[in-house]
Amino acid sequence: MTVSIVGASGYSGAELLKILLRHRGVNVKKVFANNNAGKRVDEIYGVFRSQTNLVYEKYSPDQISDSDVVFVALPSGDAMHIVPEILKANKRVIDLGGDFRLKDASTYQKFYKHEHVSKEYLAQSVYGLPEWNCEKIRNAQLVANPGCYSTSAILPLVPLVKENVIEEKGIVINSLSGVSGAGRSTSIDLSFSEVNESVRAYKVGVHQHTPEIESVISDASGRDVTVTFVPHLIPITRGINTSICARLKRTATQEDIAAIYQKYYSKAPFVRVDGTAIPEIKNVNYTNFCDIGFRIDEINNTIVLISVIDNLVKGAAGQAVQNMNIMFGFNETEGLL
Amino acid sequence: MTVSIVGASGYSGAELLKILLRHRGVNVKKVFANNNAGKRVDEIYGVFRSQTNLVYEKYSPDQISDSDVVFVALPSGDAMHIVPEILKANKRVIDLGGDFRLKDASTYQKFYKHEHVSKEYLAQSVYGLPEWNCEKIRNAQLVANPGCYSTSAILPLVPLVKENVIEEKGIVINSLSGVSGAGRSTSIDLSFSEVNESVRAYKVGVHQHTPEIESVISDASGRDVTVTFVPHLIPITRGINTSICARLKRTATQEDIAAIYQKYYSKAPFVRVDGTAIPEIKNVNYTNFCDIGFRIDEINNTIVLISVIDNLVKGAAGQAVQNMNIMFGFNETEGLL
Amino acid sequence: MTVSIVGASGYSGAELLKILLRHRGVNVKKVFANNNAGKRVDEIYGVFRSQTNLVYEKYSPDQISDSDVVFVALPSGDAMHIVPEILKANKRVIDLGGDFRLKDASTYQKFYKHEHVSKEYLAQSVYGLPEWNCEKIRNAQLVANPGCYSTSAILPLVPLVKENVIEEKGIVINSLSGVSGAGRSTSIDLSFSEVNESVRAYKVGVHQHTPEIESVISDASGRDVTVTFVPHLIPITRGINTSICARLKRTATQEDIAAIYQKYYSKAPFVRVDGTAIPEIKNVNYTNFCDIGFRIDEINNTIVLISVIDNLVKGAAGQAVQNMNIMFGFNETEGLL
Amino acid sequence: MTVSIVGASGYSGAELLKILLRHRGVNVKKVFANNNAGKRVDEIYGVFRSQTNLVYEKYSPDQISDSDVVFVALPSGDAMHIVPEILKANKRVIDLGGDFRLKDASTYQKFYKHEHVSKEYLAQSVYGLPEWNCEKIRNAQLVANPGCYSTSAILPLVPLVKENVIEEKGIVINSLSGVSGAGRSTSIDLSFSEVNESVRAYKVGVHQHTPEIESVISDASGRDVTVTFVPHLIPITRGINTSICARLKRTATQEDIAAIYQKYYSKAPFVRVDGTAIPEIKNVNYTNFCDIGFRIDEINNTIVLISVIDNLVKGAAGQAVQNMNIMFGFNETEGLL
Repeated sequence: MTVSIVGASGYSGAELLKILLRHRGVNVKKVFANNNAGKRVDEIYGVFRSQTNLVYEKYSPDQISDSDVVFVALPSGDAMHIVPEILKANKRVIDLGGDFRLKDASTYQKFYKHEHVSKEYLAQSVYGLPEWNCEKIRNAQLVANPGCYSTSAILPLVPLVKENVIEEKGIVINSLSGVSGAGRSTSIDLSFSEVNESVRAYKVGVHQHTPEIESVISDASGRDVTVTFVPHLIPITRGINTSICARLKRTATQEDIAAIYQKYYSKAPFVRVDGTAIPEIKNVNYTNFCDIGFRIDEINNTIVLISVIDNLVKGAAGQAVQNMNIMFGFNETEGLL
Repeated sequence: MTVSIVGASGYSGAELLKILLRHRGVNVKKVFANNNAGKRVDEIYGVFRSQTNLVYEKYSPDQISDSDVVFVALPSGDAMHIVPEILKANKRVIDLGGDFRLKDASTYQKFYKHEHVSKEYLAQSVYGLPEWNCEKIRNAQLVANPGCYSTSAILPLVPLVKENVIEEKGIVINSLSGVSGAGRSTSIDLSFSEVNESVRAYKVGVHQHTPEIESVISDASGRDVTVTFVPHLIPITRGINTSICARLKRTATQEDIAAIYQKYYSKAPFVRVDGTAIPEIKNVNYTNFCDIGFRIDEINNTIVLISVIDNLVKGAAGQAVQNMNIMFGFNETEGLL
Repeated sequence: MTVSIVGASGYSGAELLKILLRHRGVNVKKVFANNNAGKRVDEIYGVFRSQTNLVYEKYSPDQISDSDVVFVALPSGDAMHIVPEILKANKRVIDLGGDFRLKDASTYQKFYKHEHVSKEYLAQSVYGLPEWNCEKIRNAQLVANPGCYSTSAILPLVPLVKENVIEEKGIVINSLSGVSGAGRSTSIDLSFSEVNESVRAYKVGVHQHTPEIESVISDASGRDVTVTFVPHLIPITRGINTSICARLKRTATQEDIAAIYQKYYSKAPFVRVDGTAIPEIKNVNYTNFCDIGFRIDEINNTIVLISVIDNLVKGAAGQAVQNMNIMFGFNETEGLL
Repeated sequence: MTVSIVGASGYSGAELLKILLRHRGVNVKKVFANNNAGKRVDEIYGVFRSQTNLVYEKYSPDQISDSDVVFVALPSGDAMHIVPEILKANKRVIDLGGDFRLKDASTYQKFYKHEHVSKEYLAQSVYGLPEWNCEKIRNAQLVANPGCYSTSAILPLVPLVKENVIEEKGIVINSLSGVSGAGRSTSIDLSFSEVNESVRAYKVGVHQHTPEIESVISDASGRDVTVTFVPHLIPITRGINTSICARLKRTATQEDIAAIYQKYYSKAPFVRVDGTAIPEIKNVNYTNFCDIGFRIDEINNTIVLISVIDNLVKGAAGQAVQNMNIMFGFNETEGLL
């Protein structure tokens, strides 16, 4: 099977290439990166030396004619300009950005700060969270790969909302992200000297993953969820730690909660739930796992959920390959263990 | 004026010494550190080379006879064994640990996991948060210097609780701390390889600063506050970032909140409130400032408060000197700017 | 094929287990760790959750009867007490520590600060650097896996010494190591607060890898080499950067040097030489590669060599598996790409 | 006394402002920063909140008419365009960049990669290393503040070259620098994700501080020195660690070396020499100290010198203020302890 990557020189694109090169069922045909066109992949990412001879090319629609699936790892706002033409060429698309995750174009515009130019494709896009959407993913032509923060928040929350254990309004989500989540960027704000030995809360209450988290959990659980989402940048390269506080609707023990997660995730190959240990980023970095832990604060009748993922793997490229595996009938874990 | 430090070879003790050496009104007489007795201070902390000839000594009560004030920077559980004898010797004491912060010995035992052996001194101890307790501190014989997390949470919360702007029940506090907050310790859990490139939530809902935060805010505001407190260790050496979510009782604008802080903190030399910028640790590290920022999430009728301090300065040694300045009639900022 | 690991709960042991679990030709039978005996592997290293059910056991010689090869990942000084009995049981041994790397017991005692108790095995042990010792490794019963610093220094130096391009006396080696190289230890010196935002040169001129580097290069090249070796601890978890300065014996161009490396390493699957790019640790971390670069300082008639490895992979566990692959007829790269 | 800073919004400029604000003898009149003109200083650097109301202004020559001294903290290549007009206005200038450090314009062009447009001022500029040039600095109109790497290399080397203890040819200097040394820059190469968990040797043998180190040591010692200089970027924000290897011309003990340093630096307030301890960056960060240590490798007849400084303080702004103190008759340590 043949795949191509558009936007292959960013961090998600590079991680995707790394995973696909060890996937036993695919052949990476083309890697597109307009800014780095003409350069060898291993010139930008030395880690690929002796691993591939691929050269970044300038993207044009005729270049993907022999690809069975096209991964789009462009910044949000760019993907919506090229995804329609790829779909029209009867290719299947996995978009790692945010352009096709929200069903509502006005919400998109409010949070992404620009108009959506391909609104007509929002309805058909399938949200690519395999643990909750596996059947739809299997047959989708356009998969919207979840946001990194969103993945870390949705996976621990859906089972508890669905089982009506927690208040669905005003859930508080604090996330800590590694800097690679902001992409391969020249911003002074992302320079080592500005990030190291500090923390930066940002886009408090207005981050674009907020409506994604709310709508996906609401759809999956059938309850109307609202969240206060506070993302923070911390001085690590990779990984997300998400700590969630939610009011319990009824008394619940650690065992009750464990049983709920067991019910929904016992067969999910990449979700590991442990009610005793607290998850730590170092246990999931460079893997496709999401680790989930929890503690009940009985005095406040509140549950604290902690989840961790590698933002570039389960939060981006790994999940994209997991989706591809489902779409094309591979073993769900192929290339990912 | 003459001061001594008991427990001077830990991180708080060392920071205290650094500040006191540049304070124009005091003479550091003795530094006690049983484990390092006989060693020069600059042998343990090279930063003191050419700055002091002090040598760590073994503590005994007769050694402090010529000190006007004794700083105790021992681990919680140790201070309560020696503070009484220092008080009996008519010395004034500033305790940087947790032994005299809580008024209720049973709460102490529940959270500190050992019995309090000097319960009779709890009533007289004064909580050393200068912004709220200045008058009592002035005349106190025993000052309980606040916890680092507590300082970062109490300063932003008290004005809003006092003005009845936020729900006092179920406030959610997420704190991120540098590793020096755990002290100069040999624990594997604090080794570089375990902490770097990761995050560790710990003591979720059961951290000993929880009752301290609750009782101090309740006392200062006259309302019965409860909090869910989630501390995290992150890979920085110094600094605390605290992000707080609280439900608004009534509609409030950014300007309303700014006015409240202005009312309470316009004359506080070490509290800087800015409704537009988000505070960052790097702006307060190596200073005694607490920076506070805030954002209103209108959809959830929730306010997000962000505060930052240097855990070793405003969270420990700096605040201790601020207390000393008040107790002995120095300018409140002496040695601290 | 069946393998066991003695000393499996240290960082090298854990890395070894991670590699062996994905190796298609081996079955990890037993993992020994006296201090953690009885604990599940994934209790100490959460990364193994859902990956293995192995439990650490207390080592005793009868426990390894069904192992074809025993990896020993104990601290130097411990291995020499148990390796003889394993050899006598006709098992093959790969020792990741320093006990069997030096041929001369008095040099061992001088640098390791204790006597060698199994001197009689030094002669038979084979230094496990596959790029230079492949044939001997193939048939060895006891392989002494190279030190991490040594690997990073020997690989770039041997070809140039052998070709008589550089002065073999007084080569200057500056190495920078991640903290995991010091093992999973409780030392205050390795705590995050002591290591972060600093650098620590240590054992200057007296590090135990010095005689290893000298003797291995001397043996491989036939010239009597001496080096001044200056190791530094820097605030990264994994990786070694080694910068070497050596005087040129004759004029040489970048092309001349490239040709020499090409001659010796063109078929080495894990050595990548690039005369134009400067190697960086991030390109080799989590891999078994050693990347080598070089620059000629014509004014001083000196060549600067830069090499990088992951200290836990090519510097320890990865190289150990590479040796095992050679010893047992697997493809040299099995489990390592 | 009144001072101004041109290029005040870079890291060196900000550090300079921080020091000057606590200096008891000066009044900071103007801070110039063309890119940030119109912005408050505390908008760019939150650390200055409540500390100053200064606003960055666009530089023009008439703006400095009431300044007694002008600090120029512009990138090399920019300073040479404006320093002449400031000198002509009879102001004294301390230039923190590289434009007036080398006496030879052709060497400047070779290493800085552009022509020198103010060659005629090179002869009069005084190299601002107070430990070796104090008298000339006192009366200089134009002081060229030393480079950060240069300071760390020159201070340990001059006494040993001057006393004819070490070979002056082919000295090997390996330096490790924090990222702030590269300035406040948008380069991808300086982004957190690229720098963290890695090391980057760069400009090997061709760094512009090489001729500065050589010429200053040669001038101060009367011997013609050459060095191979290998700078590395490591993941810390501040600090330089320099490890130097030099051949001994004659046998020397630790005591001999200590005596030499004692001879030259016993009265230098900011040089601390300790033959037993190894200097560490954390002991000098945020200070104006240079700590020096040394070890003799008898086998190779080589001495290893280790020195550490804070690149922004003794390596830039602190040294600039030390120079100003000398030029204007303040105590040399004013504002710096």
